[in-house]
Amino acid sequence: MADLEMYVAVAKVPRSGELESGDTIEMIERPGGGFSFVLVDGQGSGRAAKTLSHLVATRAITLLKDGAYDGAVARAVHDYLYTYRMGQAAATLNILSVDFAAHKIIVTRNNPAPFFVLTPQGMRSFSAPSEPIGLQPLIKPQMCELPITAYTYVVMFTDGLLRAGERRGEDLGLPNYLAAWPAHEGRNPQTLVESIMQRALMLDEDEPSDDMSVVVLGILPADDVPGLRRLIVSAPIIATGPAEPPEEPDVVK
Amino acid sequence: MADLEMYVAVAKVPRSGELESGDTIEMIERPGGGFSFVLVDGQGSGRAAKTLSHLVATRAITLLKDGAYDGAVARAVHDYLYTYRMGQAAATLNILSVDFAAHKIIVTRNNPAPFFVLTPQGMRSFSAPSEPIGLQPLIKPQMCELPITAYTYVVMFTDGLLRAGERRGEDLGLPNYLAAWPAHEGRNPQTLVESIMQRALMLDEDEPSDDMSVVVLGILPADDVPGLRRLIVSAPIIATGPAEPPEEPDVVK
Repeated sequence: MADLEMYVAVAKVPRSGELESGDTIEMIERPGGGFSFVLVDGQGSGRAAKTLSHLVATRAITLLKDGAYDGAVARAVHDYLYTYRMGQAAATLNILSVDFAAHKIIVTRNNPAPFFVLTPQGMRSFSAPSEPIGLQPLIKPQMCELPITAYTYVVMFTDGLLRAGERRGEDLGLPNYLAAWPAHEGRNPQTLVESIMQRALMLDEDEPSDDMSVVVLGILPADDVPGLRRLIVSAPIIATGPAEPPEEPDVVK
Repeated sequence: MADLEMYVAVAKVPRSGELESGDTIEMIERPGGGFSFVLVDGQGSGRAAKTLSHLVATRAITLLKDGAYDGAVARAVHDYLYTYRMGQAAATLNILSVDFAAHKIIVTRNNPAPFFVLTPQGMRSFSAPSEPIGLQPLIKPQMCELPITAYTYVVMFTDGLLRAGERRGEDLGLPNYLAAWPAHEGRNPQTLVESIMQRALMLDEDEPSDDMSVVVLGILPADDVPGLRRLIVSAPIIATGPAEPPEEPDVVK
């Protein structure tokens, strides 16, 4: 067990013309061990969608950090959104967890878009009907548990990705592309995320018609310093602030 | 402004013999735009230290996700720890924020260990006296604000890093090493993190005498697809669970 490593890669672009994506992805370390990735797509676009997806993601990571089980988190977050936005606001919610304590991968989905699992045995699509949170009472997530085994990849995304190329009547053909991915070669998830994102951007001629986010988890044999964890983030600096300068706080330099 | 990119790299190892580090690092996207990195070192080692650092980090990210100002977060988290652990538990807390709305880098420090800022003009050490949170009433953080400008690097870490090599009477010599870093060349923060961590592990002969975590932020000219954000994570899979298998939830496959 100590000889496996988890790798997660995420790429995310806003709709063309927007500075910021309405999708929010947050990662937390699970208090019992492991990591969870929360991916939220707020309805609409621009600031309103971003605020909605922040609100949902914040609630989800707070509950997860308190040790709540993923399925309970999705239900509680739905109830919260449904209650306080009175059934008027929808969001999709995916939670991808690598649970070290239960030694399982747990995927929680309130999203019509499917997710895919690749193993050396082939590709499986998880597309059981699933609704976004926020619109009706008592919405439940689709839950899926997978063993943590080498050469298992999980591919999760927001629906914008599936719409790449729509304007030109083209299609990403993601299932076919993933079915051909050589899982047994143990390539880094980053490679897969880059190639999916590049194809999507190409289909949209570098002007995405929707916010697009892709998350890929890969379980691979460890080949690093024992115990070493890494995190790498990059993001363009954008101006989100109000026009007037904020008040200066007391600063000790 | 739109032509700058932020890069953050983190590396983290547990003390030799421990599966898990007592340090916790969490990243969140700020609701007003930008990112915050919360680094907590809980006193002691093993599970107790890890639980303490989770508790503190959870509180901090929840408040930050609600839009609270970094300095207020540090004070509130201190008050929380001081109140509920009755002054018996200490932790160090660093918050590194890239605030897109205020267009500033904000560093909040409740940690005797300093942090460093590298620019083409040279290195500055920020080492004003600062106490861990949790032990006395009314502990305030040291705050520092920096402009978001190209070729600015911020290097932040837990004190374990400074103790690398102690056993053999050696020293990482971090200030000298950083002073020689060619900030104007715009190298990726990942390179800096890797080299710091490698040197620290070498000094401890690959058996770290304490949990070590390093965070490096770099502001660099953008050279990527506009709007694209990336996240890459890797961690060894470890067994943190109880001996008895957990109850099986209802699973829809």
